[in-house]
Amino acid sequence: MSLNTQALKLGVIGTGAIGRDHIRRCSQTLLNSQVVAVTDIDLQQAARVVADLGLTAEVYPDGHALINAPEVDAVLVTSWGPSHEEFVLAAIKAGKPVFCEKPLAVTAAGCRAIVDAEVAHGKRLVQVGFMRPYDEGYRALKAVIDSGQIGEPLMLHCAHRNPTVGENYKTDMAITDTLIHELDVLRWLLDDDYVSVQVVFPRKTSKALAHLKDPQIVLLETVKGTRIDVEVFVNCQYGYDIQCEVVGETGIAKLPEPSQVQLRSGAKLSNAILMDWKDRFIGAYDVELQAFIDAVRAGRVGGPSAWDGFAAAVAADACIEAQQSGAIVKVQLPERPQFYGPDAK
Amino acid sequence: MSLNTQALKLGVIGTGAIGRDHIRRCSQTLLNSQVVAVTDIDLQQAARVVADLGLTAEVYPDGHALINAPEVDAVLVTSWGPSHEEFVLAAIKAGKPVFCEKPLAVTAAGCRAIVDAEVAHGKRLVQVGFMRPYDEGYRALKAVIDSGQIGEPLMLHCAHRNPTVGENYKTDMAITDTLIHELDVLRWLLDDDYVSVQVVFPRKTSKALAHLKDPQIVLLETVKGTRIDVEVFVNCQYGYDIQCEVVGETGIAKLPEPSQVQLRSGAKLSNAILMDWKDRFIGAYDVELQAFIDAVRAGRVGGPSAWDGFAAAVAADACIEAQQSGAIVKVQLPERPQFYGPDAK
Amino acid sequence: MSLNTQALKLGVIGTGAIGRDHIRRCSQTLLNSQVVAVTDIDLQQAARVVADLGLTAEVYPDGHALINAPEVDAVLVTSWGPSHEEFVLAAIKAGKPVFCEKPLAVTAAGCRAIVDAEVAHGKRLVQVGFMRPYDEGYRALKAVIDSGQIGEPLMLHCAHRNPTVGENYKTDMAITDTLIHELDVLRWLLDDDYVSVQVVFPRKTSKALAHLKDPQIVLLETVKGTRIDVEVFVNCQYGYDIQCEVVGETGIAKLPEPSQVQLRSGAKLSNAILMDWKDRFIGAYDVELQAFIDAVRAGRVGGPSAWDGFAAAVAADACIEAQQSGAIVKVQLPERPQFYGPDAK
Amino acid sequence: MSLNTQALKLGVIGTGAIGRDHIRRCSQTLLNSQVVAVTDIDLQQAARVVADLGLTAEVYPDGHALINAPEVDAVLVTSWGPSHEEFVLAAIKAGKPVFCEKPLAVTAAGCRAIVDAEVAHGKRLVQVGFMRPYDEGYRALKAVIDSGQIGEPLMLHCAHRNPTVGENYKTDMAITDTLIHELDVLRWLLDDDYVSVQVVFPRKTSKALAHLKDPQIVLLETVKGTRIDVEVFVNCQYGYDIQCEVVGETGIAKLPEPSQVQLRSGAKLSNAILMDWKDRFIGAYDVELQAFIDAVRAGRVGGPSAWDGFAAAVAADACIEAQQSGAIVKVQLPERPQFYGPDAK
Repeated sequence: MSLNTQALKLGVIGTGAIGRDHIRRCSQTLLNSQVVAVTDIDLQQAARVVADLGLTAEVYPDGHALINAPEVDAVLVTSWGPSHEEFVLAAIKAGKPVFCEKPLAVTAAGCRAIVDAEVAHGKRLVQVGFMRPYDEGYRALKAVIDSGQIGEPLMLHCAHRNPTVGENYKTDMAITDTLIHELDVLRWLLDDDYVSVQVVFPRKTSKALAHLKDPQIVLLETVKGTRIDVEVFVNCQYGYDIQCEVVGETGIAKLPEPSQVQLRSGAKLSNAILMDWKDRFIGAYDVELQAFIDAVRAGRVGGPSAWDGFAAAVAADACIEAQQSGAIVKVQLPERPQFYGPDAK
Repeated sequence: MSLNTQALKLGVIGTGAIGRDHIRRCSQTLLNSQVVAVTDIDLQQAARVVADLGLTAEVYPDGHALINAPEVDAVLVTSWGPSHEEFVLAAIKAGKPVFCEKPLAVTAAGCRAIVDAEVAHGKRLVQVGFMRPYDEGYRALKAVIDSGQIGEPLMLHCAHRNPTVGENYKTDMAITDTLIHELDVLRWLLDDDYVSVQVVFPRKTSKALAHLKDPQIVLLETVKGTRIDVEVFVNCQYGYDIQCEVVGETGIAKLPEPSQVQLRSGAKLSNAILMDWKDRFIGAYDVELQAFIDAVRAGRVGGPSAWDGFAAAVAADACIEAQQSGAIVKVQLPERPQFYGPDAK
Repeated sequence: MSLNTQALKLGVIGTGAIGRDHIRRCSQTLLNSQVVAVTDIDLQQAARVVADLGLTAEVYPDGHALINAPEVDAVLVTSWGPSHEEFVLAAIKAGKPVFCEKPLAVTAAGCRAIVDAEVAHGKRLVQVGFMRPYDEGYRALKAVIDSGQIGEPLMLHCAHRNPTVGENYKTDMAITDTLIHELDVLRWLLDDDYVSVQVVFPRKTSKALAHLKDPQIVLLETVKGTRIDVEVFVNCQYGYDIQCEVVGETGIAKLPEPSQVQLRSGAKLSNAILMDWKDRFIGAYDVELQAFIDAVRAGRVGGPSAWDGFAAAVAADACIEAQQSGAIVKVQLPERPQFYGPDAK
Repeated sequence: MSLNTQALKLGVIGTGAIGRDHIRRCSQTLLNSQVVAVTDIDLQQAARVVADLGLTAEVYPDGHALINAPEVDAVLVTSWGPSHEEFVLAAIKAGKPVFCEKPLAVTAAGCRAIVDAEVAHGKRLVQVGFMRPYDEGYRALKAVIDSGQIGEPLMLHCAHRNPTVGENYKTDMAITDTLIHELDVLRWLLDDDYVSVQVVFPRKTSKALAHLKDPQIVLLETVKGTRIDVEVFVNCQYGYDIQCEVVGETGIAKLPEPSQVQLRSGAKLSNAILMDWKDRFIGAYDVELQAFIDAVRAGRVGGPSAWDGFAAAVAADACIEAQQSGAIVKVQLPERPQFYGPDAK
């Protein structure tokens, strides 16, 4: 099969930081894709991106016009979170494949509405922008688990650490902006779902602003009984550091540290730790979007599904309740429709 | 000061595995000590140890006779756990320094009785056989914490793993025999006390016997608000593995892995993991007992105190209650007597 | 700048293992390239590759016909080593950019002829297939060196190890097939040239066939006085392992080990070591060829030059002489033409 | 066997830094030894050490008086290097066990004279103060080699690095003061002898004083054909770092790095590197001298022998010749007397 055939024609809704980055990616880095349409709540900004990146793309007045433009084969939703649901539903209605940055919707009910619409449509159209399952390290970790080398997973010890966060980062964002990645990737890693969650608040770091509880520890239990602890620490100062250790019946597998030059210098044997989250999963973004493009061109949609987006939202809601109540909160995920069978990714 | 003066004359109660090992240690490895008296519930066994190790030591008919023998300067209690309290109290009554293997007593009340007797005596006489504070790795870890390099400790992630355990190992022994070491060493490491505890049971490993819940995760909260999670996994198959990671405000410090030859062989870059717990803290046992001997010869007793033994017992009781109830259980440690001031170790 | 313009039309001479792999790469993985012409000494084999990969490419009767075909924008030479020189010279004559797998020519004189032809042509057309400068690890290592973090490089300790080699691997191939990669990448890493070389033969491994001296140690000296030792060990059994440690005035930097899941299992803490060389630099092949394609589309040729190919050949000749004589052999590299100025890569 | 019998009575010749340290060690740290006699070229200094350490030891007017004092069971020679030979010979003449700090003698001829005297005496009396064979790391490395896990050793890559050296450190001291440790320990590690040596001088570091060639690389060949490269770099700035990697037929074993707390801090994942050589082998000094004391009390002398001291001296002489000539120099070690049979250590 030659790939030098027709490129996939993409329309992008939202040309802010992530939107602009995806446009660049699809135009310059990935194979067989072409951005032909863009729009943004600020149309001048959309036009500027088209000019800056030297695209031959049309600026549409709004997301609905873009979705319905005949030249648009597939849609990327990278607009403001609260607008995602509306545009994804519109894309489903138009029968067009849609890649939606997380969150799929800002409420679990919104996610559920998308799931229902997609199931009613009868064919998968939606891929959610969870990129970690496309990270080489997580894939290697899953390969080790799936190989049986460590037996059945029993416990996971995870950490999600950022050097610092800004003033607008609130305590619940530890769930919705930070933990959300673990909520997605661990379901995939374990092929399992959450049944309960608890949040405990350690002594607060003096480096966090007054309004923010930081760090937090989230304790998750899965259907199979696996116990997960995730340390969320967004003012850890020292680096952007993602840890995941899977304790199985016969062994332990650990997510690889990013590859670095080993240095002997100044009485230290050291490896650099990344400071910027953008450097950590940069490769995964490419793989994720290429997978979307390749799948759509092959007539199907794969990757993290609307159901995965819904499941993450339901778990996140339970986590927020657990943050507030201090209690162990049940995660009540409805039964998965057959439509999203066990081959999700 | 020359040390080539009079050796400390020790009497040892209990000549089972650990007793015999301590006798060998005091006779052959440590400085300035001499085992002059032994006894055991099985007197023939006591005599055999004397003969095997070539000691010139008298076999006493029972612990009380040994404690009160004029030639005995100090006592080592290495008998069956339930007999510890009686012999330690007798040593205090006799005004003799006593090193007691853990547990100090099998109940918190028993430990408290010892504390009260020692306080009434007016001078420290008891050192409890918690050896981890004497381990080079833990000492290095404490030095890093105390140096301020990682800021205030906020969270600890720990693991205590054994390859396998025998049939007589019951679910509560995960606390009394295994976690007890963390309960002691972490108080010392953090210079802090526990206020609450919770135990969660992950999916059980298929490698554990029917009657045993394994693994377990113990969640501790301290007075300062530090949160500790300890994975206790006594059928982990792969090795005897002690992990301790201290997450501070500005950095993370990790207990060193035991030093090993790095090997490239058979498509693996590897370091050996110990399989036998005896190899892990063998050096710490020597340091611990030498510290007792040196201190007694200098006219004082240091190291883990009767109060430390009591505090560990109180925490262990709360852990066992938490195992059974599934609830968050308060650890109710009475106020520390001035006698056991903040210079405990 | 949009890249969704005309793809680069490539002609490939030689459809053996490496040729076929490059054709797949250029057709399916890389951006903006299209294989429109192929040929091979076995034309049926060439036709089979076209069919297998579903290309719309013409099979030309020979390399010269392919080079001169008007539809061919640039040429990939992946034929049998002894034929490289002829095809590269033909491409230069035709004024077409040419990517030539190593060796550029089987003799230093042949390389020099290509250099002379390219200089006479007046513009760079040749990129040699040395892929290590495109490897992420080597690039990170070079970045550390260039940052001044370790001061001026004084010594390099390197190793090039293969698990095993076949019967047709002869003692001199340790230079021409194995060390050749170090001869290229270390010049680039250090921005330096070799002045002398010595080869010593350690005790031979019992795992090597009778006719092969294995391992070997090659000692190189550079113009700046840096000393390099390279262990070449092609029957090391345990893995494909590339090591490079740069000792500078104030610190040491080490080529990263390939990123792997860390495993605790069976009394070992381990990371996998690759067994197949193809897995080690697979990413570098993509980057290397994409760089060629991008450069040609931008109207220039970069990367390892004909001069680099010549310099490696001169050094390799000296190494082979040193293998045979046991003496320290001078590396006599003529002065570099201005044409290949200090901005080579 | 009880060790609580008579302590070994030691006389120490030379109370400078190392002498004083050994006196402290034998009086306060080791078992079953007592320093009863000391002397020094500066008798006041000797008296001061006796007073400072609270010894009940007599100060003798000179080494010969001390050696011949009836109360002295065994002798430690820690005086100025050039005086070693005289005192060791005197001890042999007196039939007393003698532990001599390196060098055994400042010339190979002097070492040979000691060997001849000891052989004539008919029983081993001399242990040379090479402490590395008593280092835990080297012992673990030897155990791996001897286990056959890596097959026959073929190559060793070693490094001996100091942060800085003083003005009085000359180019030949890279051999006599620094490499001398590798010359001894590698013979022991491999159970082999040297047959040739070559020294190459890389580009000099700008951190070394004008009169010193630093770094140096010493290339050794053994009787079995094993090739050893030792980087000697005494102004490496970053730490005191001892490396030893043994490449065998089927795998590679590496001397452990000293155990350290792993730190995540300031964008670095790091382990401390020692800066002071005294911290590196401090444990080995204790083990080494305890072995001497235990052996003498058991009626024999073991450890590095006078022959080992001689062999190291012969190799060192060849290294110095190689430094000066730049040529490959033969190491001409006479046949080993039966007396120093293959069970040397």
